[in-house]
Amino acid sequence: MLEAIFAPQSVAVIGASPDPTKLGHRILKNLLDAGYAGRIYPIHRGASQVLNVPAYPAIGSVLDTIDLAVVVVPAATVLTVAEECGRHGVKGLVVISAGFKEIGRAGHELERRLVDIVRQYGMHMVGPNCLGIIDTTTKLNASFAALYPQPGQIAFMSQSGALCTAILDWSKSQDIGFSRFVSLGNKADVDEVMLLRAWGADPANNRAILAYLEGIGDGSAFIAAARDVTKHTPVIAIKSGTTQSGARAVSLHTGALAGSERAYEAAFDQSGVLRARSMQELFDFALAFAYQPLIPGDRLAIVTNAGGPGIIATDAAERSGLKLAELAPATIETLRANLPATASIYNPIDVIGDARADRYRTALTAALDDPNVDAVLVLFTPQAGSEPEETARVIVELAAGRTRPIVTSSMGAASIGPALQILNQCRIPNYAFPERAVAALRAMVNQRRWTERPPGEYVRFAVDTERVRALFERVRSEGRIEPGELEAREVIEAYGMRLPKSFLAQSPEEAAEIAARPGFPDASFGKERGDGYALRCIY
Amino acid sequence: MLEAIFAPQSVAVIGASPDPTKLGHRILKNLLDAGYAGRIYPIHRGASQVLNVPAYPAIGSVLDTIDLAVVVVPAATVLTVAEECGRHGVKGLVVISAGFKEIGRAGHELERRLVDIVRQYGMHMVGPNCLGIIDTTTKLNASFAALYPQPGQIAFMSQSGALCTAILDWSKSQDIGFSRFVSLGNKADVDEVMLLRAWGADPANNRAILAYLEGIGDGSAFIAAARDVTKHTPVIAIKSGTTQSGARAVSLHTGALAGSERAYEAAFDQSGVLRARSMQELFDFALAFAYQPLIPGDRLAIVTNAGGPGIIATDAAERSGLKLAELAPATIETLRANLPATASIYNPIDVIGDARADRYRTALTAALDDPNVDAVLVLFTPQAGSEPEETARVIVELAAGRTRPIVTSSMGAASIGPALQILNQCRIPNYAFPERAVAALRAMVNQRRWTERPPGEYVRFAVDTERVRALFERVRSEGRIEPGELEAREVIEAYGMRLPKSFLAQSPEEAAEIAARPGFPDASFGKERGDGYALRCIY
Repeated sequence: MLEAIFAPQSVAVIGASPDPTKLGHRILKNLLDAGYAGRIYPIHRGASQVLNVPAYPAIGSVLDTIDLAVVVVPAATVLTVAEECGRHGVKGLVVISAGFKEIGRAGHELERRLVDIVRQYGMHMVGPNCLGIIDTTTKLNASFAALYPQPGQIAFMSQSGALCTAILDWSKSQDIGFSRFVSLGNKADVDEVMLLRAWGADPANNRAILAYLEGIGDGSAFIAAARDVTKHTPVIAIKSGTTQSGARAVSLHTGALAGSERAYEAAFDQSGVLRARSMQELFDFALAFAYQPLIPGDRLAIVTNAGGPGIIATDAAERSGLKLAELAPATIETLRANLPATASIYNPIDVIGDARADRYRTALTAALDDPNVDAVLVLFTPQAGSEPEETARVIVELAAGRTRPIVTSSMGAASIGPALQILNQCRIPNYAFPERAVAALRAMVNQRRWTERPPGEYVRFAVDTERVRALFERVRSEGRIEPGELEAREVIEAYGMRLPKSFLAQSPEEAAEIAARPGFPDASFGKERGDGYALRCIY
Repeated sequence: MLEAIFAPQSVAVIGASPDPTKLGHRILKNLLDAGYAGRIYPIHRGASQVLNVPAYPAIGSVLDTIDLAVVVVPAATVLTVAEECGRHGVKGLVVISAGFKEIGRAGHELERRLVDIVRQYGMHMVGPNCLGIIDTTTKLNASFAALYPQPGQIAFMSQSGALCTAILDWSKSQDIGFSRFVSLGNKADVDEVMLLRAWGADPANNRAILAYLEGIGDGSAFIAAARDVTKHTPVIAIKSGTTQSGARAVSLHTGALAGSERAYEAAFDQSGVLRARSMQELFDFALAFAYQPLIPGDRLAIVTNAGGPGIIATDAAERSGLKLAELAPATIETLRANLPATASIYNPIDVIGDARADRYRTALTAALDDPNVDAVLVLFTPQAGSEPEETARVIVELAAGRTRPIVTSSMGAASIGPALQILNQCRIPNYAFPERAVAALRAMVNQRRWTERPPGEYVRFAVDTERVRALFERVRSEGRIEPGELEAREVIEAYGMRLPKSFLAQSPEEAAEIAARPGFPDASFGKERGDGYALRCIY
């Protein structure tokens, strides 16, 4: 559905400029630099060429079909340009230009008309008001991002463009690669639901789908899409703006309503979306999914060359609900026969501070071969005699072809830099501290359990929405902003939930009379209110 | 009390070896390399000099007083050496040698005798079985650590030597400095309580005290010491081994009992010790305390150049219980007058993506001058036109001399490296993600509230411990491993807590008879058990 956007045969950059200070210049340069193999058409009113590529005054003058147009012209011109694109048969738009919904009422109207044009011509559009998109599988950089990420198998969408630039910058230093990287902007057309479905259809390239969301347009559609995708591809989300102050900040930022924490929590739970508590976790989880096979169960083995970190990891595992694997007798025998007497041959397996790479090989092989072990966490602290690089190579070698994940926490930094590089290049996720490694494995267990859950089905309950609507209209027409207690009961009952019976008495005498009715074993009187007496009774 | 150990006038290295593969060689080299200004005496049976320093066959042959002796000889020789040190008037020992309590019964006995010698001569001892100690204020490196840390104002003690090396390595890459750095080893003499008191007495050098603990020897002494110290110096601890599996791992590791999660939680709560949930948090918190003034209240202002990160920070603040400061009208006016119309002049203050350093100056000055603001979190994402280094310099300049903390989360890495260096060198804590910055500020609020709490006093309750002891002895003598229900009630009552009265009836008839007694409004009969009927009644 979105091939025209992510895998176009030809791309026009409308607003490509010879002036290097303009975004349109940067975007064309990015497109050229990333090595995109398709045909490129800069569109600029005056220039005959931009960055040595022949330019055209308008898209109508290009004698070629164009799949994707990147639009970076003033907001006032965007509608005309979109119209021209539609007429020319363009299938996808990435509208970088700002000046739409985010600026208030006038922009809102402009955006509505833009969407009309997009729909009229059967196009799809990312944006407006976005940083653009990147697809490393097609080497397409249709963005003004300052950095182009390494290829990888993590797909990332973000409702914040600034976050995109920050993440690209940070991921560069961490050697984290991406398959797709999308700044959603105002998501007037292409939104999280469409991207979920499109990316979910390509699990080979997108081993983990990450989303930073400030609001979700259509909750039901999101849940439905997520339920389909999460069954085979982990979706990890940060939904921000869920606290009261956060929601206020979202509203100031994009004019969107952020929705309540609980509603999102429930939606994510019901659709198997893994929620990251922080940006750090978002990428910690993603690395585990992108680099390693999905964990088959919840039994963890720990191999360490130091007691302290082993204990830290053990604590973290138990707190997060992972089990410390009970090693099979054969494993314990192997460890006893091949490790020094002072080693701990139970789990955590402590190969002791002076362990060289060979001792890690012994312990890790034994743990990986143990049928009681679902995942191995290797802890490494640099000590006298340690062989960080050789140990990293052993881990890489033993991890190859396994169906159970291996993650590491090589603590330290300065002295183990090359070892960290080996691990990362060979797709062994490494975490600076053991707790983060454990949290990532825990996310894998959640994903595994979700994929094994029976699909379930949606039950639509018979809800008397008319009654509720009428009630709220009455409340509103009386100038009130909240319903009374008895009205609230009516709402609850309209949703099919049962409540103890309740009566409203107009006087103490009437209350006593009601309480005296047969079958009335317990009655409590409410406090006097302006409008009478509230009486609640259970029978 | 521990000056001989941390600020000795003279140091002997007993076991200093000319063989570069030996620990004793490494330790002497470390001592020389760090620039220690006192007198150094290598002790080695055969060599006349080690590393160009005149050596002595035994400490008795040194014609000088010696404050500190670092002992790195085989365990079997340590007692003799300690005795010689005592006779020579040595005041402090750092015993690196292993082979004591951690190896089991024989080592336990050896350690007991070592402690006897230490006490007999009025010495103090760190270790045995440790990595050694570092004090950057006296340039003393009496350890075999591979790295010497930068000077700083964070004091760190660890019950895991491997963790020490990992932390030194990692902190090097993060530019984190330390005042003191101690590997506690078996803590046969110097323990967490002594270090707390010693370090707490030097708040100028130790602005934050960090501890990685697997077990605490004397809980009451720890609480008492911590209560004194935490009133002026933050103490941040990771207590590991508090889960069931973790405790088992601790016991395998050091033979110590780890104690229950709840007991430690309560002890830390009662003594103002801040508990870090992870190693990362331990240092995140430490940086805020070491670099910035203590937060005066809980009202946070956020200055950002991007909406998304601002919302993430706002969410994190509200979740952690910090308040978003309500900016004073004058502040809002200043911001309105000096920021572009599209900026958000409420909190979070959004200076918008194209902000250069001057706009950060405007917003940060206004926030810092606002009496409603207790702390400022500055968020920075690299965008087109951003000035990372210049912005960092503005932050540093404006932070100088303030009584309210400023922390930053400059997201990204590759492109903002020099800016991060400026911030760190000028003691502005920077966190890779906003959530971590918020958590550190929250820890500061906890510390502030603790320091403002009235000191309180200990109440000793009248507990009938004799009755409880007798009861448990009876249970044990009957070969049972848990008390019965009525016995458990007796224990609770012995601790002065009141319970509904309870009787044990031997038959249904007796139960009915008891239930028929006067003042017996409600009675419920337990299920039949082998030993009779349990009867619980409330009157």
